[in-house]
Amino acid sequence: MEHVLFDHDRLARIGLPEAVFCESKSPDVLAELLIAHGRRGARPALFTRLAPKIFFSLPEDLRSLVDYHELSRTAFGSVMPEKRTGRVAVISAGTADGPVTWEAARTLEYLGIRHTVYEDSGVAGLWRLASRLKEVNGHDAIIVVAGLDAALASVLGGLTPRPVVAVPSSVGYGMARQGESALCSMLVSCAPGVSVMNIDNGYGAACAAARVINLLAGVD
Amino acid sequence: MEHVLFDHDRLARIGLPEAVFCESKSPDVLAELLIAHGRRGARPALFTRLAPKIFFSLPEDLRSLVDYHELSRTAFGSVMPEKRTGRVAVISAGTADGPVTWEAARTLEYLGIRHTVYEDSGVAGLWRLASRLKEVNGHDAIIVVAGLDAALASVLGGLTPRPVVAVPSSVGYGMARQGESALCSMLVSCAPGVSVMNIDNGYGAACAAARVINLLAGVD
Amino acid sequence: MEHVLFDHDRLARIGLPEAVFCESKSPDVLAELLIAHGRRGARPALFTRLAPKIFFSLPEDLRSLVDYHELSRTAFGSVMPEKRTGRVAVISAGTADGPVTWEAARTLEYLGIRHTVYEDSGVAGLWRLASRLKEVNGHDAIIVVAGLDAALASVLGGLTPRPVVAVPSSVGYGMARQGESALCSMLVSCAPGVSVMNIDNGYGAACAAARVINLLAGVD
Amino acid sequence: MEHVLFDHDRLARIGLPEAVFCESKSPDVLAELLIAHGRRGARPALFTRLAPKIFFSLPEDLRSLVDYHELSRTAFGSVMPEKRTGRVAVISAGTADGPVTWEAARTLEYLGIRHTVYEDSGVAGLWRLASRLKEVNGHDAIIVVAGLDAALASVLGGLTPRPVVAVPSSVGYGMARQGESALCSMLVSCAPGVSVMNIDNGYGAACAAARVINLLAGVD
Amino acid sequence: MEHVLFDHDRLARIGLPEAVFCESKSPDVLAELLIAHGRRGARPALFTRLAPKIFFSLPEDLRSLVDYHELSRTAFGSVMPEKRTGRVAVISAGTADGPVTWEAARTLEYLGIRHTVYEDSGVAGLWRLASRLKEVNGHDAIIVVAGLDAALASVLGGLTPRPVVAVPSSVGYGMARQGESALCSMLVSCAPGVSVMNIDNGYGAACAAARVINLLAGVD
Amino acid sequence: MEHVLFDHDRLARIGLPEAVFCESKSPDVLAELLIAHGRRGARPALFTRLAPKIFFSLPEDLRSLVDYHELSRTAFGSVMPEKRTGRVAVISAGTADGPVTWEAARTLEYLGIRHTVYEDSGVAGLWRLASRLKEVNGHDAIIVVAGLDAALASVLGGLTPRPVVAVPSSVGYGMARQGESALCSMLVSCAPGVSVMNIDNGYGAACAAARVINLLAGVD
Amino acid sequence: MEHVLFDHDRLARIGLPEAVFCESKSPDVLAELLIAHGRRGARPALFTRLAPKIFFSLPEDLRSLVDYHELSRTAFGSVMPEKRTGRVAVISAGTADGPVTWEAARTLEYLGIRHTVYEDSGVAGLWRLASRLKEVNGHDAIIVVAGLDAALASVLGGLTPRPVVAVPSSVGYGMARQGESALCSMLVSCAPGVSVMNIDNGYGAACAAARVINLLAGVD
Amino acid sequence: MEHVLFDHDRLARIGLPEAVFCESKSPDVLAELLIAHGRRGARPALFTRLAPKIFFSLPEDLRSLVDYHELSRTAFGSVMPEKRTGRVAVISAGTADGPVTWEAARTLEYLGIRHTVYEDSGVAGLWRLASRLKEVNGHDAIIVVAGLDAALASVLGGLTPRPVVAVPSSVGYGMARQGESALCSMLVSCAPGVSVMNIDNGYGAACAAARVINLLAGVD
Repeated sequence: MEHVLFDHDRLARIGLPEAVFCESKSPDVLAELLIAHGRRGARPALFTRLAPKIFFSLPEDLRSLVDYHELSRTAFGSVMPEKRTGRVAVISAGTADGPVTWEAARTLEYLGIRHTVYEDSGVAGLWRLASRLKEVNGHDAIIVVAGLDAALASVLGGLTPRPVVAVPSSVGYGMARQGESALCSMLVSCAPGVSVMNIDNGYGAACAAARVINLLAGVD
Repeated sequence: MEHVLFDHDRLARIGLPEAVFCESKSPDVLAELLIAHGRRGARPALFTRLAPKIFFSLPEDLRSLVDYHELSRTAFGSVMPEKRTGRVAVISAGTADGPVTWEAARTLEYLGIRHTVYEDSGVAGLWRLASRLKEVNGHDAIIVVAGLDAALASVLGGLTPRPVVAVPSSVGYGMARQGESALCSMLVSCAPGVSVMNIDNGYGAACAAARVINLLAGVD
Repeated sequence: MEHVLFDHDRLARIGLPEAVFCESKSPDVLAELLIAHGRRGARPALFTRLAPKIFFSLPEDLRSLVDYHELSRTAFGSVMPEKRTGRVAVISAGTADGPVTWEAARTLEYLGIRHTVYEDSGVAGLWRLASRLKEVNGHDAIIVVAGLDAALASVLGGLTPRPVVAVPSSVGYGMARQGESALCSMLVSCAPGVSVMNIDNGYGAACAAARVINLLAGVD
Repeated sequence: MEHVLFDHDRLARIGLPEAVFCESKSPDVLAELLIAHGRRGARPALFTRLAPKIFFSLPEDLRSLVDYHELSRTAFGSVMPEKRTGRVAVISAGTADGPVTWEAARTLEYLGIRHTVYEDSGVAGLWRLASRLKEVNGHDAIIVVAGLDAALASVLGGLTPRPVVAVPSSVGYGMARQGESALCSMLVSCAPGVSVMNIDNGYGAACAAARVINLLAGVD
Repeated sequence: MEHVLFDHDRLARIGLPEAVFCESKSPDVLAELLIAHGRRGARPALFTRLAPKIFFSLPEDLRSLVDYHELSRTAFGSVMPEKRTGRVAVISAGTADGPVTWEAARTLEYLGIRHTVYEDSGVAGLWRLASRLKEVNGHDAIIVVAGLDAALASVLGGLTPRPVVAVPSSVGYGMARQGESALCSMLVSCAPGVSVMNIDNGYGAACAAARVINLLAGVD
Repeated sequence: MEHVLFDHDRLARIGLPEAVFCESKSPDVLAELLIAHGRRGARPALFTRLAPKIFFSLPEDLRSLVDYHELSRTAFGSVMPEKRTGRVAVISAGTADGPVTWEAARTLEYLGIRHTVYEDSGVAGLWRLASRLKEVNGHDAIIVVAGLDAALASVLGGLTPRPVVAVPSSVGYGMARQGESALCSMLVSCAPGVSVMNIDNGYGAACAAARVINLLAGVD
Repeated sequence: MEHVLFDHDRLARIGLPEAVFCESKSPDVLAELLIAHGRRGARPALFTRLAPKIFFSLPEDLRSLVDYHELSRTAFGSVMPEKRTGRVAVISAGTADGPVTWEAARTLEYLGIRHTVYEDSGVAGLWRLASRLKEVNGHDAIIVVAGLDAALASVLGGLTPRPVVAVPSSVGYGMARQGESALCSMLVSCAPGVSVMNIDNGYGAACAAARVINLLAGVD
Repeated sequence: MEHVLFDHDRLARIGLPEAVFCESKSPDVLAELLIAHGRRGARPALFTRLAPKIFFSLPEDLRSLVDYHELSRTAFGSVMPEKRTGRVAVISAGTADGPVTWEAARTLEYLGIRHTVYEDSGVAGLWRLASRLKEVNGHDAIIVVAGLDAALASVLGGLTPRPVVAVPSSVGYGMARQGESALCSMLVSCAPGVSVMNIDNGYGAACAAARVINLLAGVD
């Protein structure tokens, strides 16, 4: 474990445990980390952006140490104890936003935060959003994932009093600009108080929502 | 009139009469053009982007030749005969879109096309849009003007079968990028078949709608 | 069919039936969708951006359910009944624009709209365009596909009274910027009333033209 | 009041009362709005981006209707009742961030939310930040305003468990790119769960924090 | 004359005499330079980008030393002897391109090169271009000035065998991007062998054409 | 040969024969074109951007019809008769510019224009450039190929009276931006009258030089 | 002095005393700061980007407290003691780079570092650079200021063994992009080990050079 | 060795020996160069950006001529004699910066400069940086490698008096923009006198540091 210095106090300091961004790590380093965090009794760690091609190239005994979710490209050995307070809604515009939507959901699962996922709620089908609105507003924080024109973030932001964390997704082509157009739409949304994460950063959105839930949890 | 060669056959060729883009012309040239087109019997011409500062610096007798509209920065002496077929709806997200909205409306007036303006119909107030939808759909073409996230274009595009011409407006600051974010949102709109004009180009949107109305007019 | 919530009322609401953007969907989901829409009596659906590599990896019995067109990367099982009113011209600057040109043409075929394709009509050979102009103007709406400097959109826009929908194509290298230069040229075209779609969006251009044709059809 | 359609139900719907973005409104419209909202018993409204040059050009009797704050360019007649739950820290990197910092603080004042402002806490003087950390963490949500490299957002995000809303400010020159570099730094911050607003959007940050405080308030 | 070190051998070395870019120089330095180059017998120098506001603020006796041309913002005291070989055509799309068109023409005048200016020849009026083509082709090099979609450069480049130097002009708004769209159109022009100058660089285009004329002159 | 409409009069009209841009063409179309132009007596055509992977996948008998040059990715069957007048220097900054340098050289060979190639003449080794300057100036036009900072174009432009066509090459990483930094450097070069081509467009540079040589040839 | 918290230990910590960036400060705050630092015995402070318009609007008695230099827009009351070790060369491409060049020189003066300024040494006049090279190399660090193509940085970087700090200046128009093209040229310079500052940041370049001189000074 | 003209005097002229940028060179050319520089007694040369895929495809006997380091993608046969004066610290924010960090370290090794590498010192773990600060400051120059928000460069720049060369690394996704956000953060860092290299340019940073060390070495 010489390759990575872990920040083991982060959980105490900011209430969020360790995560490993896998995209820039070699298979050897990933194997080491899986062993360290996957074994019984280890500190929990969330592996994000762990590509199927990389994960399935690892030996079976390593892979079996963790719970891997292909669409979201996440893995973890153990998870945090479930929090008794607070629930998060994760709502997405379309199925194409799945990898980001589920990265957020899986991170919430890892953090022990109860949550509900509502996919395919884009403004092209406004009645679907309308029919779900009351239920969505029953949550304590909302993560909204959308690409392209990201109109869902604006529409939803104008219909809910809850904290809204918006994540642009990199779907589309041409002037979708790998999610930059969705990002800009969210940043200049006409709905007040919608805050925004980096493109495709479902993990970060879950952490932002977790900060709200942790605050609530400290309150009760 | 040596400074500008006019394209007098354009009306016959493409059904759209002359327009003068004033932003890059000197007061002397503008004065000449106002005299040429403002006088009785002259060929009609539409003056666009004629800034109040420039217009009101012209002598009173020149100014009185034309009908000037300050918000839209447009002027014309005479207008085309009103067409008996076809009506255009011009719908905008907010009052800040006024200059573009009214440039489109004034161009339609100049072209002799009947039209209705619906301002302040942005998605922040979805019920306003909803309450107007049936009336809007009673028109033959729709011009939608919106800035910022331009969500109105997507929402409306998913609710109307009519030809929709979307014009991004350069309102806002920061990542609104002088209308570029609205432009991109419109181009990647999840509503199918919404076509887009340059930023702030209310004049062009009216011409695009006029091409549709002219087609209809030829049909009956 | 749990993966995708369909918007089955879209046809009634905006006159355009369902389409499936395949680029971000897994082979499993695509297989499900092909079965659902390819079988006799199913609601028609258009599959766009269905890459040959993906399509030809599907089992033969699935592939045989639909009519696949490789250049345009489109597929459909059944098509809409042919409309008796309205014809669309699809005109392109060069053979390199083929995928976009034919995505537009195939979408029109799917929508039951009569159309003619004129390829290789770029301004480098102005006489070719000139010799076809009268015939092109015999159509009710024009889709123009061009990349690079997109000069064809400007030249044609100045020669036809018809509604013109311009689609930039992502051909070229260097400062062609994957179609962004063509897009900008079209947006700032000196021909009035040319409206623009996202880069490579032949499907959207066909939908925009269909809105015009549907309007005409409602008129007669 | 024909010029602006107000969304009077927004307060009930999303817990945030009306605000008027003044930058694109004419003095006449602003005068109307000041009269409507400044008089005793009127619904409260917050005026943002109300430039001194515009405000001080208004008649004295209009100006006296509202409490104007020049640095933040905000005005309001009356404010919301002070909430008994929740406190927000507004922390900025430097004095140059003042307009944004105080737009956030004034919006919180308008919303009736208790708050503390900590200016000049940038990472160039880490001990200043360190000496204030415990006090800052005593708040329920944190707004961090920073321009240039925006390093404060990352450093603080790694030291607090509270919800953090980051606002890039448009200070600096050259590659500061009017705040775009600060925005990008915040979006890709190595501290998890920091969410971001548009450049200079102190108003929006306060609304985002208010959503958290409103949630808390609903809890107790 | 301590402020500027002149490159007096440039004429001998590359056949192009001195020019003074005035935009970044103080009135004091400009006064010095006008005296140095305006007086009888002085080495000739061309002053470019000399704004009317600056020029007309200089004392009358200084101004009378040089021939000032307001539209092109150029001045010179004396000019180079007229060359007996070679002629350049300067052709522009519209009157809005005047400042660039005439900067090129004035530079040619300064360099002693015979030339003809053809304004308002944009592709919106193809027949005007057609009617002038033969005459234009009678020149030895062609400078084409165009903004917006810059379609003139492509069309002309496909109709002439002469060396073509294209100059994008910064007219227009929105996605015209201060001439960047015109620049890109010219760079990716489908006409082969059209070379391009910086936006608004009429001076540079004249120098590029002069290099061709100087080559010809050396030949005879 | 149905797939491509050829512009067979281009040679007569602008003095430059046909070229085929291969990057966007299918192997089937390329095979047809090679047969059409490679056979004895056929009109000459230049194939550019013909990738080795594509070329070497063609049958041997087709490949043997043309002279293929791998580094420059060009092929031709026959070439134009050598012109007796005019010589072009092609000078590059480094070996990494080879593909562009040789695309220019091969195009000149195809056009029957005599030329010399000077590689590795970048400003990092100024004396190399200095030692070759006199010889380079003995040519009638100069093509300069450079990437990165493209300083060679500026330095050479200040040392030669000849027409200079500069081609940015897409070498480098990071802020080299695939050649855009080199392009900008060339466009804003402090040497007067350097004209510029699209990134990597060696073919276009040769055509621009050919226009100069053709002019000279017409003169003698 | 409540408005600005000073970092009085910076000098001890990093060897560079206080500086005040004036661009975003109000005249009142600037007046306070001038009084604080201009009076006899005060800690020295450098005022950068202090616009003449602002400075000359201050009362004469305040202005007399400091030494103001208009071109560089800098002011200081007292300066650091002159260092006995180390000398810096400041070399610029042209007179238009003056504000940046002299901001660097004035900062060095403030820091007590001996230096020489060499203006107008751009590559358009290579012999001027050559004639100064030996003298320039007699310094311990070199600051090079250049705009446009910034070729001077590359050429000089290939001719000197000294630490080179390059500052892009925002001169020029069009694709000079307010100095971004010069910045990119410097970043991708073919000369090894040239490091770069933000556009127009003469102050920062002097600080970077001062770090080298301070190191040297510590050595002897 | 005909393919590459070497600049063998560079070592004498600027104190930095030859380097070969391998990314754009063919395996054949690389083989030649490895033979030339890898054999005993040859002039030393550093090979940078030599991808493992390319290197390991070379014959074993060629590979054995040099010392190859896979993470940094560098190779060299022999190295420069170790300098007795001067030490450089290379400090990175995270393990993902490894390729750039070690390219810098390996270049220093090649240049015979003593150095220490401190990885994983990002601001997310400020105490790690703090605990190493004194040791880091014991070096004569500091290279800091960081991606994403690059906050380490600002924090460290405010804590050390040493020359600091900052290298942005291209880690991250979305608005990390392949390192451009890190680059901008470094350029606008609030710490004075931090100079910056191109994205991922560890080699260049080592050269910049070597210029400082060489200066020191000349002093003693």
